[in-house]
Amino acid sequence: MISAPIQKRMKIIDKPEAMQTAARTLKRDGKRIGFVPTMGYLHDGHLSLMRIAREQCDVLVTSIFVNPTQFGPSEDFNEYPRDPDHDRQMCKKVGVDIIFYPTPPEMYARDHTVYVVEDYLSSGLCGETRPIHFRGVLTVVAKLFNVVQPDLAVFGQKDAQQFRLIQQMARDLNFPIEIIAGPIVREKDGLAMSTRNQYLSPQEREDAVQINRALQRAEDLFDRKERWAEVYRRELEVVIHKAATARIDYIEIVAVQNFQPVSRIEEPTLVAIAVFFEKARLIDNTVLRP
Amino acid sequence: MISAPIQKRMKIIDKPEAMQTAARTLKRDGKRIGFVPTMGYLHDGHLSLMRIAREQCDVLVTSIFVNPTQFGPSEDFNEYPRDPDHDRQMCKKVGVDIIFYPTPPEMYARDHTVYVVEDYLSSGLCGETRPIHFRGVLTVVAKLFNVVQPDLAVFGQKDAQQFRLIQQMARDLNFPIEIIAGPIVREKDGLAMSTRNQYLSPQEREDAVQINRALQRAEDLFDRKERWAEVYRRELEVVIHKAATARIDYIEIVAVQNFQPVSRIEEPTLVAIAVFFEKARLIDNTVLRP
Repeated sequence: MISAPIQKRMKIIDKPEAMQTAARTLKRDGKRIGFVPTMGYLHDGHLSLMRIAREQCDVLVTSIFVNPTQFGPSEDFNEYPRDPDHDRQMCKKVGVDIIFYPTPPEMYARDHTVYVVEDYLSSGLCGETRPIHFRGVLTVVAKLFNVVQPDLAVFGQKDAQQFRLIQQMARDLNFPIEIIAGPIVREKDGLAMSTRNQYLSPQEREDAVQINRALQRAEDLFDRKERWAEVYRRELEVVIHKAATARIDYIEIVAVQNFQPVSRIEEPTLVAIAVFFEKARLIDNTVLRP
Repeated sequence: MISAPIQKRMKIIDKPEAMQTAARTLKRDGKRIGFVPTMGYLHDGHLSLMRIAREQCDVLVTSIFVNPTQFGPSEDFNEYPRDPDHDRQMCKKVGVDIIFYPTPPEMYARDHTVYVVEDYLSSGLCGETRPIHFRGVLTVVAKLFNVVQPDLAVFGQKDAQQFRLIQQMARDLNFPIEIIAGPIVREKDGLAMSTRNQYLSPQEREDAVQINRALQRAEDLFDRKERWAEVYRRELEVVIHKAATARIDYIEIVAVQNFQPVSRIEEPTLVAIAVFFEKARLIDNTVLRP
């Protein structure tokens, strides 16, 4: 007898307590929960993370929440694009079981005062340009972990410093959760997929490809056995300066383990770039492994 | 047919991962886990908290861990008394099922960098005298929550500010855990039970009773309809000054809700006292409810 596949319905849950109740039931049934937190406006980069979680778990949960505490006062919290219908369609494509979709008042009490902080790995790179950013990220991820109670969570390697920090938080606060990095997904011309690519003018969109070209230059240098970080910094700057609309925030060469700058590439090393355009700040990176 | 009660053996677990595995199995079996974290050297105050958890849960877990991150550099981390055999006997008395008993290297990696912080409720009272104390407390309690995964946790009302902060952390970080306060347990003469009472000389031990007498004075004033906080402060100071060996750290009259000082007692109000002796710093409190 051939049984038809059971048509599962994708659930949308907006209350943290309801999500916790659902998670508790799933865990009591011995289900393995995979989780991909997002800020919505989903693209193929997000879907690739969901597919990784999907493969390794019984139940796939994603969250869509534009988290106010990770945006600085002059940043794009209000303009950050939102499209619930599009997001639901994208989630269906990869077989999401539950979308956790809270509003800010459901996630933050008016007298919220508790934060998760990290002062060492988070001080350089994006942490320097965005001082409260990682406090907000770690706090909301800790909250989401406690709400969704996943066994496994997948984060994009594009946000390399964020990934490293979440990995550290999971270890240091003993979250019983496996943290996995999903590879960077790129447009055909090499630009890393990002919700913020929407902000680019046509000229900026064309220029933005220089970020990936700079990372390719880093990989070429590495293949040619160049090991001095200073050479990388100099050469990558030249590549990015070909984009007239771009202003470099940073080009950093740091150890993957501790995010401290290295002068020579002798252990797994992150080459990370952040570039400002008029309305967008884009980041990208590659890891060199001697 | 009468079946004999099954003789349960108390388990001692020293590795966080092993505790997490045990917790996962218990939760899969639908067991409700009650938790009382301690720093060991257990007294009847601790046992009363364990009895509260015992009544409301299927499985009672306690942790014994003298947490280094909540002691300041000049505080008593090294001298804090430890007595594993005594503690095991005490735990057996109240039917503890699992003692989680890690060592500092099992709880803190050498490159531990992630902390849980609170800057509002924690700034006054004990937070003023012990600047890093509550960061350490919240961090270790968050860790222990993730290791033990309890449904319910019981903390002593003696540490009123700590209780309020843990309650806030559980809410703000969405821990799916019910946080319960256990009433203060006192010696026959009224001194609040505390591991640090061990540090008192005979004269100091006699003097220490003035702390509770001051709180009784507060309750008398309240019964006599006194509502001005300043009157309480002045009168309580007089009571404590009868103890020649005592030096007042603080006498605070604060709202229970936000721990901010009040000038009049018109909502649930905490009267909290901290007193230094030569080697001990003791705290005690009472709540006045108009």
